[in-house]
Amino acid sequence: MEVKTAIRERRSIRAFKADPVAEEVVEELVQLANMAPSAGNLQAREFIVIRDDRTRESLAAAAGNQMFIREAPVCIVVCVNYERIANYGARGRELYVFHDTGAAIQNVLLAAHDMGLGAVWVGAFNEGPVKRMLRLPKHIRPVAIIPVGHPVEQPKMRVRRDPSDILRKESW
Amino acid sequence: MEVKTAIRERRSIRAFKADPVAEEVVEELVQLANMAPSAGNLQAREFIVIRDDRTRESLAAAAGNQMFIREAPVCIVVCVNYERIANYGARGRELYVFHDTGAAIQNVLLAAHDMGLGAVWVGAFNEGPVKRMLRLPKHIRPVAIIPVGHPVEQPKMRVRRDPSDILRKESW
Repeated sequence: MEVKTAIRERRSIRAFKADPVAEEVVEELVQLANMAPSAGNLQAREFIVIRDDRTRESLAAAAGNQMFIREAPVCIVVCVNYERIANYGARGRELYVFHDTGAAIQNVLLAAHDMGLGAVWVGAFNEGPVKRMLRLPKHIRPVAIIPVGHPVEQPKMRVRRDPSDILRKESW
Repeated sequence: MEVKTAIRERRSIRAFKADPVAEEVVEELVQLANMAPSAGNLQAREFIVIRDDRTRESLAAAAGNQMFIREAPVCIVVCVNYERIANYGARGRELYVFHDTGAAIQNVLLAAHDMGLGAVWVGAFNEGPVKRMLRLPKHIRPVAIIPVGHPVEQPKMRVRRDPSDILRKESW
């Protein structure tokens, strides 16, 4: 699929078939995620692939019972790695790691759409329970959950701000 | 260009021809940027397009004299909008806005590469001077500068972490 088509036609998918997603496919998604640029090429991001039913159920619970997290056959939990970014100080901790994960997640969403899969970016969840259930060390923080599966819905595009509103020339 | 090809072959370009980049092209890049998902579809991001020589020179100065910022015919300054994200509280201010801009920036880099253009994500700069020179209001914060132009270099891929290092299954 063409880049611009994928960017324009990607949607947030929250309804999935039970069909599994092959291991190689998920590995390719993560590899493509990490092709995104990162501050100093430090790649201060980590990916935990969850297929276990009970873990997906607990993830759904930690995310306010968004049950499509349990229904998706696989979830990718995206984490920042504060040790890897440490040399950049506060700017690394408070900005770069989120940019680096945000860009990586966008690659996953585009590549999943390109492969005929559906995915959605979940940012609203309680980090504490997720850290505990995944046994994350202190310097690893979960920042997004991406359920991935074969879509059973084709949502319409959500309205975007007008270009004349979102783009300014030379100054504010 | 195919999505996966663009993701794999995109490079950070820091050397540009003097040739201009058409206005419609930059507008399309910004529109594609804003096709990235955002928390609550609030699109709490803003884009300032800079072509003025003196402003690009000042941007370069604010970014530790990275002179490719001046050499690129156009720069897109990407900002977060704290007013638009206000309903999400601390999580919105400290996480979502950066994810939303990170995903948008990745779209710009991929689409630019698809169009035969080069671009690079600059995150290291002094925000104060940039805010002043662009007359940004208090709730608008510049978080990235993207110089865009016709590339005169083809850098090699920078080494990525091994998949066995960056991907874990079921837990840490």
